[in-house]
Amino acid sequence: MTLPISRTAEQIAPFRVMKILGQAKTLEAEGKDIIHMEIGEPDFPSLACVHRAAMKAAEQGLTHYTPTLGLPSLRKKLAQFYRSFYHAKVAASNIIITPGSSSALQLVLTAILNPSDQVLMADPTYPCNRQFVELLHGKVKAVPVDADTQYQLSLKLLEQHWSKEIKAVMVASPANPTGTLIEQDALHDMAQFLSERDCYLIVDEIYQGLVYDRPAESILAQRDLPDNVIVINSFSKFFGMTGWRLGWTVAPTHLVDVLDRLGQNLYLSAPTPSQYGALAVLEEDALTELEQRRQIFQQRRDRLHSAMQQAGFNLKTLPQGAFYLYWDISQWSRDSEQFCADLLQATGVAITPGTDFGSSQGNHYVRLAYTSERIEEAVERIQAFVRTLHA
Amino acid sequence: MTLPISRTAEQIAPFRVMKILGQAKTLEAEGKDIIHMEIGEPDFPSLACVHRAAMKAAEQGLTHYTPTLGLPSLRKKLAQFYRSFYHAKVAASNIIITPGSSSALQLVLTAILNPSDQVLMADPTYPCNRQFVELLHGKVKAVPVDADTQYQLSLKLLEQHWSKEIKAVMVASPANPTGTLIEQDALHDMAQFLSERDCYLIVDEIYQGLVYDRPAESILAQRDLPDNVIVINSFSKFFGMTGWRLGWTVAPTHLVDVLDRLGQNLYLSAPTPSQYGALAVLEEDALTELEQRRQIFQQRRDRLHSAMQQAGFNLKTLPQGAFYLYWDISQWSRDSEQFCADLLQATGVAITPGTDFGSSQGNHYVRLAYTSERIEEAVERIQAFVRTLHA
Ligand SMILES: Cc1ncc(COP(=O)(O)O)c(C=O)c1O
Ligand SMILES: Cc1ncc(COP(=O)(O)O)c(C=O)c1O
Repeated sequence: MTLPISRTAEQIAPFRVMKILGQAKTLEAEGKDIIHMEIGEPDFPSLACVHRAAMKAAEQGLTHYTPTLGLPSLRKKLAQFYRSFYHAKVAASNIIITPGSSSALQLVLTAILNPSDQVLMADPTYPCNRQFVELLHGKVKAVPVDADTQYQLSLKLLEQHWSKEIKAVMVASPANPTGTLIEQDALHDMAQFLSERDCYLIVDEIYQGLVYDRPAESILAQRDLPDNVIVINSFSKFFGMTGWRLGWTVAPTHLVDVLDRLGQNLYLSAPTPSQYGALAVLEEDALTELEQRRQIFQQRRDRLHSAMQQAGFNLKTLPQGAFYLYWDISQWSRDSEQFCADLLQATGVAITPGTDFGSSQGNHYVRLAYTSERIEEAVERIQAFVRTLHA
Repeated sequence: MTLPISRTAEQIAPFRVMKILGQAKTLEAEGKDIIHMEIGEPDFPSLACVHRAAMKAAEQGLTHYTPTLGLPSLRKKLAQFYRSFYHAKVAASNIIITPGSSSALQLVLTAILNPSDQVLMADPTYPCNRQFVELLHGKVKAVPVDADTQYQLSLKLLEQHWSKEIKAVMVASPANPTGTLIEQDALHDMAQFLSERDCYLIVDEIYQGLVYDRPAESILAQRDLPDNVIVINSFSKFFGMTGWRLGWTVAPTHLVDVLDRLGQNLYLSAPTPSQYGALAVLEEDALTELEQRRQIFQQRRDRLHSAMQQAGFNLKTLPQGAFYLYWDISQWSRDSEQFCADLLQATGVAITPGTDFGSSQGNHYVRLAYTSERIEEAVERIQAFVRTLHA
């Protein structure tokens, strides 16, 4: 067999989390009790109002392709949402609805990158970001970050690592896998620094709304936002609509037409029932329910954090958002994949090795997703497990 | 402003059909009576059983990401569907569910193309195919085809245009924009020829099921199918689910793992409600309803064809499938975009210029989609319009 596979496709790393998930499901099928803390999605289903709105639209025959940029009513409603919730002035014409923020990330990077262009991002980071860049034959410049900067890029790091081959910088706030934020004034300075260098700043706000102890924010609320800022967002996480595959980007005006043409080719339009469902999830009642879910995540974060501390585990940060805790396990293992595999086998607790998120310290870290209620129990099992290891 | 836009993105041609659609909608809003024959999707909404199944799954909390390869139950059901409808032995493990066949096309080409690799396709062809290849920095080798080969590639054309830089050949049967088929034995010979040269044959069967005067077929029913054949399909057209964004590919075994990893990065999973909806549309009752719709399309094709002939228009082929008629207008105009714009303005009939589909004869052709019931009326208006032109 000499039928070819492309070089970029061949080098794409598998998702370790999918492997863990597969093993966990196999063990579950064998009757083992599994605590799922591996997957990056809310355990809650989407809200009933979403299902009803999608169904109602379908019954009215609204099941055709929508315009590639999205339903005008949804773009308008999102603009209003930015205004009332984030005090951000965003024009509906700059909002582009996409099939998941995954497509928004791909669309935006395709619009701006030529082969060999560099994209700066933190290590650890959301793994697909690296792959999007490499599929476009761009180069990933991964900057190792640690607890000193809340595992985030900073103006100082941009200055240190700057080179003119860099065409875009990607950040996420709150971030996956660390749950940490970048302060808005720091983001502002980074946007400014990059704007002066004709470089884009891509801000992934997909965990926006899932922020604890403080109000949720958007970079779009800043006055005089330079037009190198591109925001990525999604109905997946805060809005609890992962399976509906709906996201959006807020793009500067000069990119809208090119993003439209790219979307026309890459995916035609985002799912129509999901777009009608999303109209419902932006209503007052739905937002009240989502706020209750946010509080549940906050309680879980607090419970996980204190259980870990009581177990004597050293945590370098208190995550301020999303539903992740990134935990340094190097005192027990420098092979996080083995650690996760053994932990799952021994205790039934499924978590994700850091190697999914970065190469610099990935083998020393694991990610715990508090998308399960069985938090204290999980930590007890982990504690019992690490006791069996030579520290 | 010197913020960059990538070269590949900048050169992407706009869809003329979207421009015509926009103009048609504007005229409609001004009170003008428009007959829509421009858009490539069934005018029917999706079936009620789809809505019910999607809703029922959502109410049961099935709104999370599915495995990237798709719901196991849907993959299995499609395998059964191939067996019972097409007498094709397809393993569920070779079926990969995607968000629209658009994603299937992108996924497959990403899996096999390196930069500068060539992809052979007919001119005219479905426009996105060219763009998918160019976004990957591959090269499109477009072979002008005409009514002699039913506007399709043939073994003879492959032999004539063969070069070892060609890594894939793309065909569609039935095809967009021409509605023509390739006979299965011709396809078989092409697959064999390409297999001997380690070249893939990508067969787009997205209009499968919408075939007239003869039974629908699949290349997958062939015995000893060489493993260079990749099939693309969709729930959009025959199954009437455009807005649900659901398609699939049947890929040779050696590509499944790499397609899985690519999908994990590019889109995570196909829409979950759509996948549950698709399970319903593969049931007996739904298929009976879809067969009735197929008959309606067949009647429309016959009506359109005879109305055109009665109007004295010369048609080079009788389309055997899909819902398109490709019509040579060169006797009145060698600028199909102007022709379509003027026709719309003068008569309210919206059709698509051939320039969307190819550069070789695109200015001499237009595409009429019989996705409207007002067929005789449309032809009368066209007839009155061309009388005003100097032949
Ligand atoms: C940081 C980040 N961005 C983007 C995504 C993509 O999510 P979706 O495509 O469901 O919007 C994810 C999913 O986990 C994520 O963690
Ligand atoms: C030949 C052909 N292939 C693929 C597609 C993509 O359709 P979808 O993404 O809805 O499955 C189309 C849509 O018009 C088409 O005409």
